[in-house]
Formats: sequence, C-alpha cells, structure tokens
Amino acid sequence: MKNIIIASTSTLHEGRYLEYLLPVLQSHFKNCSTILFIPYARPGGISHDEYTQKAASVFQTINISVKGIHEFEDPETALKNAEGIFTGGGNTFLLVTQLYRNNIMQILSETVKNGIPYLGTSAGSNICGLSMQTTNDMPIVYPPSFQTLGLIPFNLNPHYLDPNLQSKHMGETRETRIKEFHAFNTIPVLGLREGSWIEVKGEKITLKGNLSARLFLQNQQPTELNPESDLSNLK
Amino acid sequence: MKNIIIASTSTLHEGRYLEYLLPVLQSHFKNCSTILFIPYARPGGISHDEYTQKAASVFQTINISVKGIHEFEDPETALKNAEGIFTGGGNTFLLVTQLYRNNIMQILSETVKNGIPYLGTSAGSNICGLSMQTTNDMPIVYPPSFQTLGLIPFNLNPHYLDPNLQSKHMGETRETRIKEFHAFNTIPVLGLREGSWIEVKGEKITLKGNLSARLFLQNQQPTELNPESDLSNLK
Repeated sequence: MKNIIIASTSTLHEGRYLEYLLPVLQSHFKNCSTILFIPYARPGGISHDEYTQKAASVFQTINISVKGIHEFEDPETALKNAEGIFTGGGNTFLLVTQLYRNNIMQILSETVKNGIPYLGTSAGSNICGLSMQTTNDMPIVYPPSFQTLGLIPFNLNPHYLDPNLQSKHMGETRETRIKEFHAFNTIPVLGLREGSWIEVKGEKITLKGNLSARLFLQNQQPTELNPESDLSNLK
Repeated sequence: MKNIIIASTSTLHEGRYLEYLLPVLQSHFKNCSTILFIPYARPGGISHDEYTQKAASVFQTINISVKGIHEFEDPETALKNAEGIFTGGGNTFLLVTQLYRNNIMQILSETVKNGIPYLGTSAGSNICGLSMQTTNDMPIVYPPSFQTLGLIPFNLNPHYLDPNLQSKHMGETRETRIKEFHAFNTIPVLGLREGSWIEVKGEKITLKGNLSARLFLQNQQPTELNPESDLSNLK
C-alpha cells in the first residue's frame, strides 16, 4: 500500500527546515528506525554529506536516523533495503539526471509503490508526478528523459505562486506557464502552495495543510481545491 | 559582420508590442523590405499566423513587411533568402525543439553570423547564447539538445528579476538559480532586465537601454554593468 507525503516545500517563511511537517513525519515514519536520504537535487553550496546531515539533525528529534544514498556502494541495494525514503529539494533537472545516471528511477518508483514510506519536498515532490515538466527549475543539466516516478497520476507545480497583481514584470506568470504545458500535454497539474502537501495512502490521495491548491486541467479554467480534497480520481 | 539585437522583452509594462525598440529597429533593419519571422516559440493562445500578423502590424509602421517562416515550404530556403530575421518570444523549450525538428538550428546560426540582421526577444534572445540552460521557461516539451545558436560567447537570462525582499516565498530566486547553473557550467550569464538589450555589431557587443544588467561569473560575486558597457570580451 502506497504511503507517501509530497510536500510543496521543506521550509516555511521564518520556519526551520521541515518544522511544520514534523508531527506528520513522526506518524508517517513511525515504523522506521532509519530512513534513506536522496540528496541528489542539491546543486552546490553544501555537499551531499552536509545536506544529509541537515536532514539527519531534524529526524534525530523524532528518534529516526538518516543515511545518505551516496554513502552506499550500490544505490539500488540501498533502496531495496530502505525502511523509509526522503528525497530533498534543489534542482529537479539535476535530481532526475542523477536518478537516471545511477539507474534507480525505476527501482525507486517500484520501492515506493510497494509501500515503503516516502517523503518528497520540492524537487523531491516534483518527481512523484508523471513528468518533471511542470518544475520551476532552470535546466542546468540535460536529463536523459523528463519522465519521473509516476507515483501519482498527475503532475505537480510545487512552490505554486499566485500572480502578483502589483508587478510590472512582463515575464510569464506561473499560471501562464502551466497553460503552456497544457498546449502540448493532457496531464492535470496541481499547483501546490507552500505549506500544502499531498498524502497518498494506498489509492487514496488527499490534499493536506491549511491552504487551497490550484488545479489546472487542459482546456478548462483553473479551480481552487480546499484542504482535505480527495484527489484520488484526478488523472 | 554580425548585426544583432538581443532584447530581454518584446513589451514593457504598459507599453505596446515592440514599441520601446521601434527607433532601434528602424535603423537595424534599414536595408530590409521584408523580414522573416520565426513564431515557433508560441505555445498556444494564438496561431503562428496570428503571431506573425502581430509582428507584421508593428513593422508595417516602419515600412517593413513580415512573413512567417511557417508560410514557406522549406524553412531552410526561407532562411537562406531572408533579408532580416526576427524570432519572437514564448517558450524556449518549444522554440529550440522546433528549430531542431525543422533542422534549421545550424543554418539559422550561420545565416546570422554571416551578417543578416537579427532581432530576438525573450525566447528568441535566449537562443542567441551558447545554451538555453538559463531560461526561465517550463520544460513543456523535451528538446533534443540544450545547445543553441552561439551568436554570443555567453548565456542570457532575459526578463531578469531582482529578488523581492518583501516576499515570503521560499522558492529559489533568479540569482540562486543562476548560481545553480554555475555549479555545473563555466559559461558567463548576463541577467538582462526588461528594457535592456544587447547590440552585436561584428565582434563588438554592447549593453543598451537605460538599465544596468547583472553579470554572473562562476565562483564570483555578481556585478552590475552599466548601459553602454562593452561585453565583447565576456566569455
């Protein structure tokens, strides 16, 4: 039975890393003594070790240890033995490239579909959809494919931002960009605001957090979905 | 001798399409009776015909006619016979995909390097750099490569946006994204604000417009370049 938390962001404004999610994570990973962290999305600034340590220092407060996938000789074996998995944020192009380069996109998908609890934040959430094509990130590396884990039957736009009506900027709004996606793709897109997350329990998919999310369907006006909305039939 | 205008945006806030550039374009295309418009970046909303008509209605005010490349049976021949070329904005992933699919990325580059006057705005400017990897656009289609025209020896970030210090949004700023690019790439990136453009005359590259531009070099603090800065040695 799938058991997944897909969060728009790891960190809220003026909050600490994963702080707002911690009560949820305590229950989500309750049967795990150790979780496997995938730091691949991080493009620089801090090393994979440092990024893993950042996650570890939070999970230690709920008595869970964290090991980075880069610490294992064979990432596939690391995934197969994982009690729980957390993929952190950063750049989605980089994350997807690394998952393909290490030949673990498929095994990661299968492992999570088989019921190992998964947490994704930001880029780690983007990859839960059918493709990474509604990411906000810059194409800093060229991935072999835009296809991702397909843990849910739609795409996400994490860190969803409403248009700033005061702005004089002429670049495309997030809504315009998602409409552009729908000129070529039929996949629904859920704009997930910071503070929202999706809970997947088996086939039940639910919008969580205090905020509404913005749903984009091809050739339709976007709509707002309230917290606790059932997303199970969205495809 | 290269003769190129690379503009951050086609349209300024509360301005009309190409309005702020029109005096520059009059001189830039002074030897052209007709220019070839490349509407490929436009992902929807209006057709290639309508987009071409939008460009044509502006150029008609300076007595230049406009023909869309999609109106020609063979886009390569259309390029070879062009007196001037304008590539409009939209989605860079789509534009690059279409240029490759029509097998004209290289011939477009050669044509402009041979001196046919070129205008790019937004996505049409992005492709003037070495790669499209510093675009702001969503990856709505999967291009066969991120390599672009290489008309200038660096990359651009059109519609460059300064961080909003009032924002509570935790998504990456433009500056952070460009730093991420530099974790894997050495190519300089020029953040070109709306209202700025680059003029290329032979090997001379100059920043134009009233605004400064933000220069990002790998492993260095970004700097501000004043209007009329000479960018010829930037690589």
